[in-house]
Amino acid sequence: MSPSRPALLALALACLLPSLANAATPYRSPQQILDASPASDWRTPDPANLLYLNLDGGRVTIELAPAFAPRHVANIQTLAGEHFWDGESIYRAQDNFVVQFGDADADDAAKAKPLGSAQRKLRAEFERDSKGLKISVLPDRDGWADQTGFVDGFPVGQDRQAGKAWLAHCYGMLGAGRNNEEDSSIGAELYVVTGQSPRQLDRNITVVGRVLQGMELLSALPRGPAPMGFYADAAQRTPIRSIQRASDVPASERPPLQVLRTDSKTFADTVEARRNRVDDFYKRPAGHIDLCNIPVPVR
Amino acid sequence: MSPSRPALLALALACLLPSLANAATPYRSPQQILDASPASDWRTPDPANLLYLNLDGGRVTIELAPAFAPRHVANIQTLAGEHFWDGESIYRAQDNFVVQFGDADADDAAKAKPLGSAQRKLRAEFERDSKGLKISVLPDRDGWADQTGFVDGFPVGQDRQAGKAWLAHCYGMLGAGRNNEEDSSIGAELYVVTGQSPRQLDRNITVVGRVLQGMELLSALPRGPAPMGFYADAAQRTPIRSIQRASDVPASERPPLQVLRTDSKTFADTVEARRNRVDDFYKRPAGHIDLCNIPVPVR
Repeated sequence: MSPSRPALLALALACLLPSLANAATPYRSPQQILDASPASDWRTPDPANLLYLNLDGGRVTIELAPAFAPRHVANIQTLAGEHFWDGESIYRAQDNFVVQFGDADADDAAKAKPLGSAQRKLRAEFERDSKGLKISVLPDRDGWADQTGFVDGFPVGQDRQAGKAWLAHCYGMLGAGRNNEEDSSIGAELYVVTGQSPRQLDRNITVVGRVLQGMELLSALPRGPAPMGFYADAAQRTPIRSIQRASDVPASERPPLQVLRTDSKTFADTVEARRNRVDDFYKRPAGHIDLCNIPVPVR
Repeated sequence: MSPSRPALLALALACLLPSLANAATPYRSPQQILDASPASDWRTPDPANLLYLNLDGGRVTIELAPAFAPRHVANIQTLAGEHFWDGESIYRAQDNFVVQFGDADADDAAKAKPLGSAQRKLRAEFERDSKGLKISVLPDRDGWADQTGFVDGFPVGQDRQAGKAWLAHCYGMLGAGRNNEEDSSIGAELYVVTGQSPRQLDRNITVVGRVLQGMELLSALPRGPAPMGFYADAAQRTPIRSIQRASDVPASERPPLQVLRTDSKTFADTVEARRNRVDDFYKRPAGHIDLCNIPVPVR
């Protein structure tokens, strides 16, 4: 490997950093950086784009991404507003992959829950034009995409030559399940990534949002014993009390919640602190971070 | 981005593959490839290197990696042989990261369980010389390592210039917990990766093995409510009935188990089938796979 390759450069930088850090600006952990962040680096998500997935065990809070999947997001908002999911279930938990929820009988016309005024057919939204999109770009190379970064808290990949960007399948991302046909998702059957980021699904499925809080209510569910993690026995499924739009809940009953702005210096600093950890524990800073290893802080 | 870059070439190959596949050799899924594998592509792990972690919910089977961490593996074998872990617990489950087990009172000299004849101090085994190591190398670039691949079923990174190789922190890998000092692990406190691969830990901790079966018994545990996923309340911990060396169990009581040889053509074919999925579901083969997205089949 020639010394001019980026990996070696990164390694060299990583090796330099400890002394530099000690000399000039002492290393701060991501948490220390967050603790010192100005209030202006945090945003309050629009309640119209927040979903509350209410389970017996607690609440999962989801932020939808209309900038990437406007048609699916609108349909999901309609479905939630009409209480489509209330009384339905989480009917699949596949280890190191996804949990999936919605109407377990969706494929059985005789038993399927009516979709109300929601659209029955939507065009796929696998990617969007990257024109006009402000991506906070990561410095490291990625095997799955030409370039990666964040837009409004969502992890994205982009292909600069094709001028396309898409939401990446990182831990906690919410996607719209589909059958083999590209346009067979309408947002009624949803899944959340609970395992090693299945980036091979990027640009193959419409991704619609991200779990902000409550992931452990999904990730720790007993895995389904049937193939692909389905629960053949309905009694094993996790009941969904309701999925609500936060905007349908009185403001006084919405727990306060803020997301770190991914275009802020605070966020960039936490990314750098993860790329090169210079604390008592780490002996060798990596000089690298993958898109899906970067949590977007929520408070 | 210039069209001569590897990512674009990979994409171009990916786009070509469907028609090539249909014309010459039809695409086979990883499962179809496994179903057609010759018996000689499978190996039976040495029972001296297998551990049974027996929980109330079932058994987790682990393969140790003496080729990478001989001192730690020998100590773990001693500890298991002397029943060190029997009656201890899984005392930590941090979401999207690790579960950890051993003696929850290890840091309290008054309460700590005696270590028997095991070593109290071991040198770190973060990496080894790559000389003489036969790595089945992956074709795709990786951000964390110069090169990646597999050795005897274990995911590894290597630095060709430095002549070093190490076990990578993928899902299901087993590591030896330590304090801040490099040489503070002895294999008594162990963790298993249950979340997005924390590759920043590579070469910072001694990795000692991999879970072959029973991951769902660890990954679906309720997350610990205390910081870093610890269970402050001992009643919330998961009791460990025992950790046994398979070689201490009569051969007739050992469930048969085989691991696909990672230096076999069958394995290489499954990797390629994951790099470029050409089936009715996938609309865009990725032309790429990350080290930690490749499960090593066990039957």
